[in-house]
Amino acid sequence: MNGRTIIFVSDGTGITAETLGNGLLSQFEGIEFRHVRFPFTDSLEKADDCLMRIAEIARTEGQRSLIIMTMMDMNISARLRQADALFLDLFEAFIAPLEQELGQRSTHRVGRSHGQENREYTKRIAAMNFALAHDDGVSDADLKNADIILVGVSRSGKTPTSLYLSLQFSLKAANYPLIPEDFERDDLPSKLLPYRDKLFGLTIAPEQLHRIRNERRPNSKYASLDNCRYEVAAAERMMRLKNIKWFDTTSRSIEELAVQLMQELNR
Amino acid sequence: MNGRTIIFVSDGTGITAETLGNGLLSQFEGIEFRHVRFPFTDSLEKADDCLMRIAEIARTEGQRSLIIMTMMDMNISARLRQADALFLDLFEAFIAPLEQELGQRSTHRVGRSHGQENREYTKRIAAMNFALAHDDGVSDADLKNADIILVGVSRSGKTPTSLYLSLQFSLKAANYPLIPEDFERDDLPSKLLPYRDKLFGLTIAPEQLHRIRNERRPNSKYASLDNCRYEVAAAERMMRLKNIKWFDTTSRSIEELAVQLMQELNR
Repeated sequence: MNGRTIIFVSDGTGITAETLGNGLLSQFEGIEFRHVRFPFTDSLEKADDCLMRIAEIARTEGQRSLIIMTMMDMNISARLRQADALFLDLFEAFIAPLEQELGQRSTHRVGRSHGQENREYTKRIAAMNFALAHDDGVSDADLKNADIILVGVSRSGKTPTSLYLSLQFSLKAANYPLIPEDFERDDLPSKLLPYRDKLFGLTIAPEQLHRIRNERRPNSKYASLDNCRYEVAAAERMMRLKNIKWFDTTSRSIEELAVQLMQELNR
Repeated sequence: MNGRTIIFVSDGTGITAETLGNGLLSQFEGIEFRHVRFPFTDSLEKADDCLMRIAEIARTEGQRSLIIMTMMDMNISARLRQADALFLDLFEAFIAPLEQELGQRSTHRVGRSHGQENREYTKRIAAMNFALAHDDGVSDADLKNADIILVGVSRSGKTPTSLYLSLQFSLKAANYPLIPEDFERDDLPSKLLPYRDKLFGLTIAPEQLHRIRNERRPNSKYASLDNCRYEVAAAERMMRLKNIKWFDTTSRSIEELAVQLMQELNR
């Protein structure tokens, strides 16, 4: 297989550059991309180290480098551009048209966050602590303060979705499992019903659920395909009866689910 | 304050567009940006709905729209471009130079993930479950299988960092608190010492720790500034003695910490 090294350089974490890069590179089939990262390249000295490594890689591979870059500091950016490379510079490409459209010069300030001193940070940590404290129905004391409540059978994806919603969007996300007692009563837990405006269901293909549960408790009744089919059908029936909107997690990533739930909340 | 609506359109979640957009917009001071999101715009019908909303916003604001876009599908992209707007198109800007550099046409396939069917997904969920099971020293049965172990005083940032490392980088992250017994012995917990190659400390400014703890347990000895100073000094001394590298979380975001820890692991 054809191979190529992609170099990500940023004066921040480089997460944005790499996320966009992954989207772009997924459009090229049959090439194996090796990722090299230079985050926090926020001084000319670090830029020089970076230049040396870039030159090394180009020598080893016998072709010029391919660099995906987010860099606020113009001086560091100019230094790096001494490398013989294709530069995809995410800020440079868009800052000029934005300046023109907004009728204002940009500050070119490195957007380092303020970490724990920041109010947004405090909100995010509070959301995460809420999600941990309200995972898997551990506590229902504070459901009225939840921004969103997820309900579904065991292993339908409630915990990862809740944690992601809290860490990415600072939402106080609670989640609540459906258990045998609920299936016997054939109804959603009554304590959830007052919160129908922020209550959403997660469901999953029974075959997929069977596979996931079988890894955890092999050959148990809990994991059996029959039981998975029964629970999923019962859960979907309850949600339909109570008019709770639900999402199928079988072929959705955590990010996709989280964004769809955000859309529902904002409606 | 000057205001402006930014419209994020994507055939995926739009998270990449918004993350990069936040970085770009933070470069313009004194303008209040309102975000409007159109994720999952993956059909011409949805594009038409989107066009109507874009036109409405432009009418209300009395100026053309500003659209930040990640769109793989060329037909949908072309339809959207009928809007009178400034388009910052993240894929369009970079796909052509990449095609030329790689000597290959891109597939223009929408990069939807495969959700739970995907091996990467399974790894990520396993990492998250590991982080939950090994949060705050709850279990030390499986430390040898951890990719990374964080140690630090209570509320130094171990839990959010561990969860982020698991969700973003699929790392099995355990974390372990330093408790009064450790301070009395004046040494790190002995069960951690076999894992020094993957053990990292977190520390925090005592004043900041005092503020955080005081929100949780107001006016307690636990939260007092004297006790916070004592614990932080003791923790840093232990880590110095055992040659454990540590990071100050006081003014770092979770993302920054996570990327720095990744760098250390790869060294």
